[in-house]
Amino acid sequence: MPAPAHRITAIDTFDIRFPTSRELDGSDAMNPDPDYSAAYVILRTGPADGASGGADDGPEGHGFAFTIGRGNDVQVAAIRALAPHLMDRDVAELCDDPGALYRELTGDSQLRWLGPEKGVMHMAIGAVINAVWDLAAKRQGKPLWRLLAEAEPEWLVAQADLSYLGDVLTADQALDLLRRGREGAAERSALLRERGYPGYTTSPGWLGYSDDKLTRLAKEALADGFTQIKLKVGADLADDVRRMRAARAAVGPDVRIAIDANQRWEVPEAIAWTGALAEFSPYWIEEPTSPDDVLGHAAIRRGVAPVKVATGEHAQNRVIFKQLLQAEAIDVLQLDAARVGGVNENLAILLLAARFGVPVCPHAGGVGLCELVQHLAMFDYVALSGSTEDRMLEYVNHLHEHFLDPVRIRAGHYVAPDRPGFSAAIRPESIDRYRYPDGAFWAEDLANQGGVAE
Amino acid sequence: MPAPAHRITAIDTFDIRFPTSRELDGSDAMNPDPDYSAAYVILRTGPADGASGGADDGPEGHGFAFTIGRGNDVQVAAIRALAPHLMDRDVAELCDDPGALYRELTGDSQLRWLGPEKGVMHMAIGAVINAVWDLAAKRQGKPLWRLLAEAEPEWLVAQADLSYLGDVLTADQALDLLRRGREGAAERSALLRERGYPGYTTSPGWLGYSDDKLTRLAKEALADGFTQIKLKVGADLADDVRRMRAARAAVGPDVRIAIDANQRWEVPEAIAWTGALAEFSPYWIEEPTSPDDVLGHAAIRRGVAPVKVATGEHAQNRVIFKQLLQAEAIDVLQLDAARVGGVNENLAILLLAARFGVPVCPHAGGVGLCELVQHLAMFDYVALSGSTEDRMLEYVNHLHEHFLDPVRIRAGHYVAPDRPGFSAAIRPESIDRYRYPDGAFWAEDLANQGGVAE
Repeated sequence: MPAPAHRITAIDTFDIRFPTSRELDGSDAMNPDPDYSAAYVILRTGPADGASGGADDGPEGHGFAFTIGRGNDVQVAAIRALAPHLMDRDVAELCDDPGALYRELTGDSQLRWLGPEKGVMHMAIGAVINAVWDLAAKRQGKPLWRLLAEAEPEWLVAQADLSYLGDVLTADQALDLLRRGREGAAERSALLRERGYPGYTTSPGWLGYSDDKLTRLAKEALADGFTQIKLKVGADLADDVRRMRAARAAVGPDVRIAIDANQRWEVPEAIAWTGALAEFSPYWIEEPTSPDDVLGHAAIRRGVAPVKVATGEHAQNRVIFKQLLQAEAIDVLQLDAARVGGVNENLAILLLAARFGVPVCPHAGGVGLCELVQHLAMFDYVALSGSTEDRMLEYVNHLHEHFLDPVRIRAGHYVAPDRPGFSAAIRPESIDRYRYPDGAFWAEDLANQGGVAE
Repeated sequence: MPAPAHRITAIDTFDIRFPTSRELDGSDAMNPDPDYSAAYVILRTGPADGASGGADDGPEGHGFAFTIGRGNDVQVAAIRALAPHLMDRDVAELCDDPGALYRELTGDSQLRWLGPEKGVMHMAIGAVINAVWDLAAKRQGKPLWRLLAEAEPEWLVAQADLSYLGDVLTADQALDLLRRGREGAAERSALLRERGYPGYTTSPGWLGYSDDKLTRLAKEALADGFTQIKLKVGADLADDVRRMRAARAAVGPDVRIAIDANQRWEVPEAIAWTGALAEFSPYWIEEPTSPDDVLGHAAIRRGVAPVKVATGEHAQNRVIFKQLLQAEAIDVLQLDAARVGGVNENLAILLLAARFGVPVCPHAGGVGLCELVQHLAMFDYVALSGSTEDRMLEYVNHLHEHFLDPVRIRAGHYVAPDRPGFSAAIRPESIDRYRYPDGAFWAEDLANQGGVAE
């Protein structure tokens, strides 16, 4: 008997906020008090002729946009605006071709005006599209990185959003890259499962930490097997010199120290400030200025060499990445799993990076960004770039305990996930506790403040 | 007795949608069925110690973001997320320095993550900031263009958002531009009130119109005194050739015909398609490709000269405009009053245009965009660029009847507004009728469809 057809029976959304600002975890020059949050969506599936919640329900698709607190409700509203595109859709059709839904969502002729392809509306599309890929991987019984690494190159090209990239990357060129990427993929897949994917850690370097805490955490990072750490900079130059000196003393001359200004500077200021830290040999300067300023990053790169320039966590879409590469503005491309329009757009961004020969070191941290983006980095290694040289995946040791399939780190490396899906699911008890404003944590917190939620 | 201090007593928001898709007004290659909409905000003011709605209430500040239908609710949610920044604020302080509020809103350390400075959240800031300027102009008893044109250059520089522009425009350079702009301002102000500001019209050229309607409306435009019209292109080349031929035949060789592809093309396609229309001498090609693609626009400009390149209605912020100018990617800068962060950011964009010597031909149309942007263009003429050469303000004859202070057109020119404020207020009866989904129009419409609002 063939399996009964399944459809999307419900699109449930959640405003989940973790009170990270209480600990100064995640503090940097632009974001002094983030409450790491997820605008979270669950696609429920069930028999085409049944209601939600029955015994014959199929797997769920989970996805989310990451925010840092206020406005998470706006992000949830944007996801809800997409629900009519999803309700009652045939699950097999969606999972066979997530790209069709991606084009439908990014092409919605009225919603498109709210971007296009940027900000709240685009991140909402990313959340939904990633949830569909989670569902697709579960249905295939594979972790997403394996689904992608084992997919036919022709199908992957059709999934990648190559629109507006025609001046630098045609479908034929993308296909060539993916075919070449498949050579030796089986061996790399085995190596990946054996050794994992190299990580680096930002945990020592938050701006709110004392020098002692920084030093202690930096040494712990080395002991844990990491070979690169990252420091937040940009609030006060004298402080940065002192903290950078402490960090370099803690890790010695051979460990890479990246620095991250979180968009704090004007272009000339970025060059001067980075120059003032040059004696401590920073490996890269990350987000030196506005994430929209392609030409500014190019000028900064010329001005700070041999320090490398890295950006991407706030790059709104593939068109910005295309230009960062065209303008030779970056040495390191920091793809983010939940900023752009999901896997379909990130496939295009990985293809762009491969075409220009620029290494991808994904942005992670936040809520669940490590869990998501590891799949993209591992696909890139196994079946596209084929290399981990100068490639590292950011690791921050926050909030993993809330995930059903949390990342695992061994000797400074991400262990390849083996559970089916995109590792996106947050534990039901965590959702219940941190739902804003009615989850147990916030209800109590707001009552203690004598306040009410906005 | 001094006037009592006033505060913001309420921030009222409205989801207003006009059913323009029924008439194919506003149809183009990317936006086939827009329902022109406003995410609308009213700042109510009253005595510091009183409640809203009393006899001593002060003037209201009106502002809005323009959308084209679905998602207008998301845009309203974003405006609501800003309300805590506004509630109970002292009105005189706000109006004396809207820039302080602008920096507070764009700098909100958590909301910032949702952009930064782009898309839904940034347009929400624009709506609120423009409402404050409306209030400020009403309190001074001047139309906004006069408030700006008569303000001290030092104060204007402090209002303009020059952040991330330091590599091309310093505060001193901005001050120089504004001081030079003031020379002869009184004469130009008098000329403006006498003759108005030149407009051009898009009304003949919507993609959904027949050739006969196009021809008739183009001739009417000439008879009405316009010296430039605009046609939507980009859906089908053979259609475009036929429509362009009809338009050229209708207006003769001396009237400028701009064409507008609404982001439809890849970069090489834009060059080829524009080339195929060259025999009809288009004046500019507008939005040939992604609004995010600065380098793409630069390549297109090199490829289509002497046809000019114009863009801006979807340029998300001043950083994109800075780069469009740095890369010599545009001949015409199409500032929009409601896409970016309001007057404070648009002052910076006008200063950038002046610095690079590129003419500003603002985008208008939609709901109330003509009403708003005329003030910025007139300020630019009177007290910054000092010129109307190659400058024209878009005019579309839609929906003005819903405004309390609608634009007035005389002999192809915008008549300078003389009522105090920013001309942003929609008639209360129009708000009541077109509120979505509960206004009289939509309630009836949805009942007739047997449907309910999403």
